Amino acid sequence: MSKTEPGAMMKVLLAIVALSLLPELAGAAKPYMEEVLTLEQAQDLVAGCESYSAKHELAALSMAVYDASGNLKFFARQDGAVFVTVEFAHIKGRTAAVSALATSELAEIEFADQTQPLGIRYLDHLTVIQGGVAVPSVSGQHLGGFGVSGAPAEHDEACGLAGVKNMLAPIK
Amino acid sequence: MSKTEPGAMMKVLLAIVALSLLPELAGAAKPYMEEVLTLEQAQDLVAGCESYSAKHELAALSMAVYDASGNLKFFARQDGAVFVTVEFAHIKGRTAAVSALATSELAEIEFADQTQPLGIRYLDHLTVIQGGVAVPSVSGQHLGGFGVSGAPAEHDEACGLAGVKNMLAPIK
Amino acid sequence: MSKTEPGAMMKVLLAIVALSLLPELAGAAKPYMEEVLTLEQAQDLVAGCESYSAKHELAALSMAVYDASGNLKFFARQDGAVFVTVEFAHIKGRTAAVSALATSELAEIEFADQTQPLGIRYLDHLTVIQGGVAVPSVSGQHLGGFGVSGAPAEHDEACGLAGVKNMLAPIK
Amino acid sequence: MSKTEPGAMMKVLLAIVALSLLPELAGAAKPYMEEVLTLEQAQDLVAGCESYSAKHELAALSMAVYDASGNLKFFARQDGAVFVTVEFAHIKGRTAAVSALATSELAEIEFADQTQPLGIRYLDHLTVIQGGVAVPSVSGQHLGGFGVSGAPAEHDEACGLAGVKNMLAPIK
Repeated sequence: MSKTEPGAMMKVLLAIVALSLLPELAGAAKPYMEEVLTLEQAQDLVAGCESYSAKHELAALSMAVYDASGNLKFFARQDGAVFVTVEFAHIKGRTAAVSALATSELAEIEFADQTQPLGIRYLDHLTVIQGGVAVPSVSGQHLGGFGVSGAPAEHDEACGLAGVKNMLAPIK
Repeated sequence: MSKTEPGAMMKVLLAIVALSLLPELAGAAKPYMEEVLTLEQAQDLVAGCESYSAKHELAALSMAVYDASGNLKFFARQDGAVFVTVEFAHIKGRTAAVSALATSELAEIEFADQTQPLGIRYLDHLTVIQGGVAVPSVSGQHLGGFGVSGAPAEHDEACGLAGVKNMLAPIK
Repeated sequence: MSKTEPGAMMKVLLAIVALSLLPELAGAAKPYMEEVLTLEQAQDLVAGCESYSAKHELAALSMAVYDASGNLKFFARQDGAVFVTVEFAHIKGRTAAVSALATSELAEIEFADQTQPLGIRYLDHLTVIQGGVAVPSVSGQHLGGFGVSGAPAEHDEACGLAGVKNMLAPIK
Repeated sequence: MSKTEPGAMMKVLLAIVALSLLPELAGAAKPYMEEVLTLEQAQDLVAGCESYSAKHELAALSMAVYDASGNLKFFARQDGAVFVTVEFAHIKGRTAAVSALATSELAEIEFADQTQPLGIRYLDHLTVIQGGVAVPSVSGQHLGGFGVSGAPAEHDEACGLAGVKNMLAPIK
C-alpha cells in the first residue's frame, strides 16, 4: 500500500523511542497483553467446518472468520455457493466476534420477552440469525467469531462449532 | 441462513419446471457458459503470494481474491498485519476483478493526461493504488482479481503476480 | 471508460502469459464452467412480464433483471410508473438473484416462527417483499433474479413468473 | 409492491378532489407540462448505440438511460462485458441527465483552469469521464442522459451520440 515499508520503519522508530525512555521505564507497569486469533487458528476453524460439511453432504458454504476486534481474518466461499451466503457469513461472523456470543444466543436475548423484542437485529452489521459462533482460546479467552452460511441454519451453527472444536484440538 | 435447504429445494423445483416444459424445448438455444474462478485456484493465488512474501521477508499482508463478478471468494490476513491492509486488499482485488486490469494499469489510464486525471480513483469501491492484479485462466479467460496490501506497493503487485504464476502452474 | 481498449489489451497479455506457460500446463485441471444469464434471456423475461401486464391491465411497472452474481443485467421502467418502483424492482431482483429464492419464499423463511422473525428484511440490499423470482435455466441451473414492482404484489410476482415462463419457451 | 393498487386508487381519489373543486377551477391557470423521456425513446437510444458498436466491432458494452429527474429508465449489459462497465455506464448516464451536459463538456468546465480544477469529479454520483451524453427531444427539450461504457472513451461517447441520433430519427 505504500512506497516505503511501514513495518520496518516503525520498528526502528519505536526502538529509538524506547531507548530514549529507558531510565523512566525501570518502574513502569508490565505491558498489557491480549491473546489474539492467529491465521493458523482461523484456517483450523474453516477446516473443521469443511469436514463437518463434507460428512453431512451440505450445500456449498461461505465461511468468515473475524478476530475479537471485528476485523476480517479469513474467508472462503466454496464453489457453487449462492452469493447471498457471502453477506450472511460475514454478518454472522462479525456479530459473534464483537459480542462474544453465538448469534443464536443473541436471538434468545432479543426475544426473551417475545412481546417486546429488543431490536438488536435492526442495528447495522449485527444479526440474530443462527450460524455465527464465538471462538474461545484453549485458556478460555474470547478470540473472535466464526460465521457460516449456505446450509440450513442449524447446520450452519453446527459447522461453526465443528470448526471451533477442530481449532481447539486440530487433527493433524 | 435458513430453516430449510434452499439449494436442494430449488433444484427440485427447477427440475420440475424444466421437465414440464420439455416438449417445447426442442428448439431452445444452447446454454451460454463462462469459466469461473474456483476456490482451489484462489488458494493457489494466496499460496504463491505467501511464498514470494516469505522469500523477500515482506511485512505481514492481507490478501483478497474476487471472482470476475466482483464477489469475494477468498481472503487471508497474516498475523501482525496492520488493519488498513484489510481495506486496501479488498478494494485492490475488487477493482482488478471488475475491470480486468491491474490497478497499476488503471493508474496509467487515470493519469494518461496528467493535467486532466479522469477521476476513476474518486469512485466508490475502485482504486488505482498499485497491488491489485487481474487473474486470467490458462485459456486466457478473465477469472477475477487478486489484491495484496502490507508491503511497499511494488512488492504488493509482485506478490499478486507471483500468485497468478503459481495458480497457472502450481508447484504441488 | 478508458483511453485504451482494456479488453483487447488484456486478451493479448493473457495469451502471452498462457503461451509462455504451455509446457508446464500439461497436467492442468479442466476449467470450471458455469451457465450464465444472457441479455437475450433477460429481454425475454421482461417481454413475458410486459405481456402479462398488458393482458391484466396492470399499472406501469419497473422490471429489473440480475444475474446470479448480483450484477444488474437489464432494466426497464414503463412510462408513468411511480419512481419508488425503481428501488423496489432492483432490490427484489437482486434478492432473488443472490438467494436463488423468490422473495415470497424468503418471506416464509423470515416468518416461519412468527414470534421470532429472523431479521433478513433488515439487512442491506435484501427484501422479503413479494415480486422477485428466481430465474432457472432450461437445464435447471440458477441463472439470476427478476424483480417487478408497480402492481399489487401478487401481480408483481405473477408478472415475474410469466417472464420466466416466456424465457424458458419464448413465443417468437 | 403493495396489497392494493396505488395507481387505480389514486386516480379515483384525484377525480373526487378535482370534481369537488370544479367551481373554483374556472379561472385556474393551465397545467404546467414537461416533456418526459419515454421507454420507447430509451430503447431507441440503446438500439442506436448497439448499431454503432456492431459496425465498429467494439467490446461488449453497458448502456444506461436516465430521465432528466435522475431516475434510471432503461439499462442493458451486453454478454461478456466486464462488470465495472455497469458502474461507469450508470454514473455517466446519471451525470449527463442531471446536468444536461455531456460528461466531456463537464470535463471542460472542470479543467477550464488547469491549475485549479473545480472538483466536480469528487462529488458523489457525478463524473467527468467521457461517455455520457445529454438527450434532447426533437423540440429541443432536455429529456435525460445516456451513459455508455466498455469501449475506449471516445467510442463510448460516439455510441451515445449514435443513440441520440437514432432516437431523434429512428430507422424502423
